[in-house]
Amino acid sequence: MKTFNKIVPLREQLKDARFTAAKEGKSIKVALVPTMGYLHEGHASLLRKARAENDLVVLSIFVNPIQFGPNEDFERYPRDPEKDLALAEREGVDFVFLPSVEEMYPQPTRTHIKVAGLTDVLCGASRPGHFDGVTTVVGKLFHIVQPDRAYFGQKDAQQVAVITRMVEDLNFDVEVIPCPIVREADGLALSSRNVYLSAEERQAALVLSRSLERARAKAEGERPVTAGELRAEIRDTISAEPLANIDYVEISDFPELSPLADDECVDAAGRQKGVLIAVAVKFGTTRLIDNVILTKKVNH
Amino acid sequence: MKTFNKIVPLREQLKDARFTAAKEGKSIKVALVPTMGYLHEGHASLLRKARAENDLVVLSIFVNPIQFGPNEDFERYPRDPEKDLALAEREGVDFVFLPSVEEMYPQPTRTHIKVAGLTDVLCGASRPGHFDGVTTVVGKLFHIVQPDRAYFGQKDAQQVAVITRMVEDLNFDVEVIPCPIVREADGLALSSRNVYLSAEERQAALVLSRSLERARAKAEGERPVTAGELRAEIRDTISAEPLANIDYVEISDFPELSPLADDECVDAAGRQKGVLIAVAVKFGTTRLIDNVILTKKVNH
Repeated sequence: MKTFNKIVPLREQLKDARFTAAKEGKSIKVALVPTMGYLHEGHASLLRKARAENDLVVLSIFVNPIQFGPNEDFERYPRDPEKDLALAEREGVDFVFLPSVEEMYPQPTRTHIKVAGLTDVLCGASRPGHFDGVTTVVGKLFHIVQPDRAYFGQKDAQQVAVITRMVEDLNFDVEVIPCPIVREADGLALSSRNVYLSAEERQAALVLSRSLERARAKAEGERPVTAGELRAEIRDTISAEPLANIDYVEISDFPELSPLADDECVDAAGRQKGVLIAVAVKFGTTRLIDNVILTKKVNH
Repeated sequence: MKTFNKIVPLREQLKDARFTAAKEGKSIKVALVPTMGYLHEGHASLLRKARAENDLVVLSIFVNPIQFGPNEDFERYPRDPEKDLALAEREGVDFVFLPSVEEMYPQPTRTHIKVAGLTDVLCGASRPGHFDGVTTVVGKLFHIVQPDRAYFGQKDAQQVAVITRMVEDLNFDVEVIPCPIVREADGLALSSRNVYLSAEERQAALVLSRSLERARAKAEGERPVTAGELRAEIRDTISAEPLANIDYVEISDFPELSPLADDECVDAAGRQKGVLIAVAVKFGTTRLIDNVILTKKVNH
C-alpha cells in the first residue's frame, strides 16, 4: 500500500499502472472510494466491494472544508489517519490519497459544480451549499484519480442521487456504485459522527432505524398506506423520544427526490423507480441521518 | 479522418488508440479543439498548432444551446458542416465529433460548472449565464475526449481566463493552450459572426482593431498613460463611427479580469501578469468582440 499527500505523484503512479498493464495487453479497472476518514465498517464494506471488483483500489481521505457550513463541525470532525491506514491496509487498498487542505485548495476555489433541484431538498435544505461542496470535491477527486468506478454508501442517499446525476449530466466516464447501509447489531447506522453521542443519546438514536423499519414494513404490507400517514407516524415515533429533535422526515421519489404528496400511496411496486424514506434528527449537537429505499419488486 | 455523432463510439476509439499505442510502449498525446463550427482561418490556426504538437487531434463542432441567452442568435448561428469537414480534412484532423443537441443533452442538464467572479464582468455582464454554459459544455467535452491539451483562441480572452481557472480549480488533467487572434488583412478579427455583417457594417467594424492598435501603441509608448485616459480614447474613437453601438470598453488585469482604476497606469511592464484591453460593440444586431493583451516585457 502506498500513501500520497500530493496530487502529481499519485497521478503519475496511476498512469504508470495503467500504462504498464497496457504494455502487457491488459486494461485495468481503477476504483475510487472517497471518504472523510475516521473509517468504520461501512467504509470497510465499500473497500471490500471495490477490492473484489477492480484491479487497483484508491481510497481518498479528505475532510473537505467547503462542504461544511460556518456553524458546522469541520474543525471538530473526528480524524484518525493512523487507524484509517491500518484499516486500509487490512482491506487491501493499493493507494491512499491523504491530501492537505492546501493541496486540494491552493487558492480559494472560484469554480463550483452545482446540481440544481436535487440539492435544495432534504439535507440540502438544512445545509445550504453543502452539496455544492460535495459535488465540487468529488469532481476534483474524479479528475485526479480518473477512476472507472466510484463507491458511495447509501446512508447518504441524497449524495448518491446528486453524484449520479452530476456524472450523467457532465459525462464523467465513471460508474457510480451505491452500497448498502451498514448497521450496528442494534440497528444504528454506522457514521463517523456517532462518536459525538453520549451513552443516552446513542440509546435514543435507535429511534431512527426503529421508526424506519416500522415504516418499511407498513409500506410493504397488505394495506395501502399514504405518504402523509407514514410521515406522521415516523414523526410521532421519533418525537416520543425526548432527546430527539427532528430536522426532517421525508418520503420522496428516488433518485429524483421530489416529495410524495400526502395522499399519494407509498408503494414502490407501482412506481418507475424507488421510494426514499429519509430522516435527519439532532441528538444534542449531533445531527444524524438514516434512510430506507423501497425498490420495486417484480412479484409484489 | 473519422466523424462521430455519438459519444460512446468516440470514447471507444480514443481508448483503443491510447491502448494500442501503450501496447507498443508509446504514450500518445490527444488534442481537443472545441468549436461551434462555421470554421475560419482562426480555427484552422488552432488545428495546425494542435496537429503539430500532438499525436491525435480531435475537433468538436457543437453549437451549444445553453450558452446562448433567450434573445441571442442560437437558431440563426451559421452552420456549414460540409465545409467544416473539408477544412478539418485539409488540416489533418483525426476525429471530428459532431453531436446533436439530444446527444449532448438527453435530458435538460441540472448540473452546471460555474466560475464565480471572472464571469460577471465584460461579456458575462451583458450575457448572464453565458459562461456557465461554456464551462459546462467544455467540462462535458473534456470528460468525453479526455484530451491532454485543449486549444482556444485568444479572441475570446475572457473564455480563456475562465476555462484556465476552471481547469486549475477542478484539477482537470488538461493543458489549456491559448492561441493568438487571427485577423483579415485590414485588421478585422476573424469570427463566425462576421457573416452577419452588411458591407457597410463590415467597413465600420474596422474601428475595433484600429482603436485597439492605437491603444496598444499608446500603452507601450514612452509617456505613461492611465486606464481612464485610454478607456476614454477608445470610446471616443469607436463612438465616432455612426454604425457602432458600444457594449463595453474595458481595461483589466489578465487573467484575473479585475478592471484597472481610472488613475492606474496601463503598463504591463510594472505588473505581475498581463493587461487586457477588450471591447464589445454592436453593429446592427451583430455583436463583435476584440481585444489586445499587453504582456510584461523583460527589457521594457
